[in-house]
Amino acid sequence: MNIYRDESNPLFQYVVGLGDDALILGHRWSEWLSKGPNLELDIAASNLALDLIGQANLLLEYAAEVEGAGRSADDLAYLRDTQDFRCHWLCEQPNEDWGVTIARMLMFSTYQYLRYSALMQSTDRQLAEIAAKALKEVTYHRRFAAEWTVRLAQGTDEGHRRVQNGFNILWRFVPELFETSGGERTLANDGIAVASDSLEADWRETMDEVMTKAGVSAPETSGRVMASRHNGHHSEHLGHLLCEMQFLQRAYPKASGATW
Amino acid sequence: MNIYRDESNPLFQYVVGLGDDALILGHRWSEWLSKGPNLELDIAASNLALDLIGQANLLLEYAAEVEGAGRSADDLAYLRDTQDFRCHWLCEQPNEDWGVTIARMLMFSTYQYLRYSALMQSTDRQLAEIAAKALKEVTYHRRFAAEWTVRLAQGTDEGHRRVQNGFNILWRFVPELFETSGGERTLANDGIAVASDSLEADWRETMDEVMTKAGVSAPETSGRVMASRHNGHHSEHLGHLLCEMQFLQRAYPKASGATW
Repeated sequence: MNIYRDESNPLFQYVVGLGDDALILGHRWSEWLSKGPNLELDIAASNLALDLIGQANLLLEYAAEVEGAGRSADDLAYLRDTQDFRCHWLCEQPNEDWGVTIARMLMFSTYQYLRYSALMQSTDRQLAEIAAKALKEVTYHRRFAAEWTVRLAQGTDEGHRRVQNGFNILWRFVPELFETSGGERTLANDGIAVASDSLEADWRETMDEVMTKAGVSAPETSGRVMASRHNGHHSEHLGHLLCEMQFLQRAYPKASGATW
Repeated sequence: MNIYRDESNPLFQYVVGLGDDALILGHRWSEWLSKGPNLELDIAASNLALDLIGQANLLLEYAAEVEGAGRSADDLAYLRDTQDFRCHWLCEQPNEDWGVTIARMLMFSTYQYLRYSALMQSTDRQLAEIAAKALKEVTYHRRFAAEWTVRLAQGTDEGHRRVQNGFNILWRFVPELFETSGGERTLANDGIAVASDSLEADWRETMDEVMTKAGVSAPETSGRVMASRHNGHHSEHLGHLLCEMQFLQRAYPKASGATW
């Protein structure tokens, strides 16, 4: 029995997973602030971060409501430890350079685009509404990432090397994107969630299109899922990220009289 | 009035300052674990970290006793925020590469060597005993750093460039080492503490000796203290360091029933 896997409330787990992806990827984008390649991109990074953290806020609020345990969206964001997070490994990887950041954004925004598109048909009206709102943002994110992938790869040799390096580093996290948990499958059968594996064909087709245009390629990988977010397993990077992201709430907890 | 500057208990501030230097520099050395240039140096880094954190433990225990407010050494280490730390800016700077790490260690262990040597004569017996114990360790640290400074600088061009780069980056933190607060001056007049400015001439002589042998030089700097630890001012790096160092105690506080 894995104490971190709560099969008794699959909708909570599912919505937390959607929220955590947006929160952690949003935090990664916030790390670019004041460090962007130029002023315009620094502002773009802020906007991407804001969009994603806004999505996280809506999703974690809904997750808290579904849980019904008296926890708030802030509690979920700032007071859980790594093993309770449900984000994908791809989202928690470090930014490294602009090439890696763009490769990751193309991969994940394409995934989010397909996931939110399908979730707009969810029989869970709240989820469908959040998805519709988020889809507008993610549509732009995907275009931003696709344009930058092509621009980097078709620009200079150095740009090509860096964005190709991004795909080389990150491609091993692809299989996890399509891993479908039992709870997710049940919710999908009820028309509430989207089974992750149902997104794979479209994802690969879209990625192939952009990557062909850019002249970059996917490296060969084992195709195995290394360890699963569904069991609370994460890469070392998530812990370091949480240390920073959660410091304020943990150093000055509500119990001490602070309000956030 | 600066709320972070407690002039009413200069001995507490002084001992916390000694302890914080050892704690933060020790934490920086612990960051080399599993990442050392080779296995021998990885183990050496562990030992340097252990020595320094051991000194921090003795000093913060004594500081807690002097404070008499019911806080423990662990409380001081893990539950203070940046503005209450009293370490020197030199200690909190990032390790960067081996050259920067070695340059910093030569600079700071030389300083600690002189400070502990003088503190052995303190009329405060507990401080004198801690100093005597620490001096043995720091004597080795200084030899280790001096040998590595010469080895790097006299080895390859790359080694010379890197250790020289270390001094170039870090030399601007030298003036702060010799800044003497009012409380420290009073304690020094009573034979308890060592006035930091009394160490400067010896420090510069020793540094000059090793750096001449290594063929590296000190860059020109303004010679001004940028901001003072005595007022709770620190570089951005300390906050990031504390996020990681304090995560466990803050995520699982004693109030929640955890004991450390």
